[in-house]
Amino acid sequence: MSVGYDRLKTSSLAELRAAIRSGAYRSHTAGLGQGYLQANLAILPEAYALDFMRYCQRNPKPCPLIGVSDTGNPMMFTLGRDIDIRTDVPAYNVYRDGRLDSVSADITEDWRDDLVVFALGCSFTFEHAVMRAGVALWHVDNDRTVPMFRSNIETVPAGPFSGKMVVSMRAVPEDRVAEVAEISRAYPLAHGAPVYWGDPAGLGIADIMSPDWGDPAPLGPGEVPMFWACGVTPQVAIEAARLPLCITHKPGHMLITDVAEDAEVPVVETAQDKR
Amino acid sequence: MSVGYDRLKTSSLAELRAAIRSGAYRSHTAGLGQGYLQANLAILPEAYALDFMRYCQRNPKPCPLIGVSDTGNPMMFTLGRDIDIRTDVPAYNVYRDGRLDSVSADITEDWRDDLVVFALGCSFTFEHAVMRAGVALWHVDNDRTVPMFRSNIETVPAGPFSGKMVVSMRAVPEDRVAEVAEISRAYPLAHGAPVYWGDPAGLGIADIMSPDWGDPAPLGPGEVPMFWACGVTPQVAIEAARLPLCITHKPGHMLITDVAEDAEVPVVETAQDKR
Repeated sequence: MSVGYDRLKTSSLAELRAAIRSGAYRSHTAGLGQGYLQANLAILPEAYALDFMRYCQRNPKPCPLIGVSDTGNPMMFTLGRDIDIRTDVPAYNVYRDGRLDSVSADITEDWRDDLVVFALGCSFTFEHAVMRAGVALWHVDNDRTVPMFRSNIETVPAGPFSGKMVVSMRAVPEDRVAEVAEISRAYPLAHGAPVYWGDPAGLGIADIMSPDWGDPAPLGPGEVPMFWACGVTPQVAIEAARLPLCITHKPGHMLITDVAEDAEVPVVETAQDKR
Repeated sequence: MSVGYDRLKTSSLAELRAAIRSGAYRSHTAGLGQGYLQANLAILPEAYALDFMRYCQRNPKPCPLIGVSDTGNPMMFTLGRDIDIRTDVPAYNVYRDGRLDSVSADITEDWRDDLVVFALGCSFTFEHAVMRAGVALWHVDNDRTVPMFRSNIETVPAGPFSGKMVVSMRAVPEDRVAEVAEISRAYPLAHGAPVYWGDPAGLGIADIMSPDWGDPAPLGPGEVPMFWACGVTPQVAIEAARLPLCITHKPGHMLITDVAEDAEVPVVETAQDKR
């Protein structure tokens, strides 16, 4: 039996996770589990894990690490009391040799004892804070995906992982730009402060209405385009590295954790019991 | 020729690093390289690096990771333009099989192609911010080492690394406690907000005047003991893991980086050129 988005919007975290785990809900997670941290996902063989972790440490704005599993253990015990990464994300992309091989609602069959799970913070957290401050975000109000661009900023490489930084764009009234930058800087686990604002040409972006990913968003009169480091950056780096196996969330279909959005550190109290 | 502390206090970063690299300066770094991030150090064989990095990610308050080297590469290119970790720390402790084997001003002879360097943020950064706000710190004013205690807080384990959290204590006037907590929370790369304040018994500390490390510090009238996660925590976890080889800085003798103390991310701009 499938469960609808509107009903889950008011569900408890436990009901929400049960609906996703059973496969009853397989759609996007924007607006669900409000108040809790959501995460991008990258699952890799252990042979690549140290280099990928170094890539995240060296590029903390596009790749804010919020959780790393033990090798071969699908339970993300630092992010929640009962999160099984094989079933608790609505939809997964499975890549083999750098190419998308399948899309699935359950990766139990793909799981291996040498896999390591990386959870990365996402932009929902700072967007909520910006909207609470009374700044409207066009893509949210119009139910579109935020526009994303390949920038001319080079990431700091680690092992096989490298590439240009992908950025997301949000248009903000000129007199709120400094305030929005300051608000987002307080969320280092959700990409932090913008990397740039103003003329898109400064990032090597020729046409602001032709994003490389997501939907185009208009610039209203008196609005300034602000650009944040984006979680698509590590996905592009992973694809370019052509790993034999890599599993990610399907874009927009995130892991919902037990960690409060305003937590200082992304570790639940029960994590200490898992010795 | 040795160089004195007082002269180096006003030296440029380049002069300071040259004096340390040549062995002319082998003493503590408190008050040197003002305005730049200083770091605790742990150098381990690659076989333990992924687990240690997971330990840091799971315990970000005692173990705030600010830099990780490539395996076998002694140049810390994300933390500075020209930092050679074999020579650029005033003094090192070399541990073999979990026991202190030697203290040295240069580890060029100990370097191996399988070593990975971890640099961790230290408390100097938030202490500077607290003092700028006009709150005096007794151990700084009296040229002592901050008192440190083994607490009853369990860290989140990863592989062979586990143990109790070590905390450092600073006495703060009751009416400044909330402000000091807020100031330090803004420095997640320097241990962040305190983990506790008030009656030391709550952390399992029997006698506040008998620290496990450092010097005792008095509690003045109207002062509250505040406790922060401490960088000795990973050193204790590493010692307990009895690694065949581990090299740390000698306590107080830190790595001085090129990263500004108030930088949003601990990565210098030239890091991108090191592909």
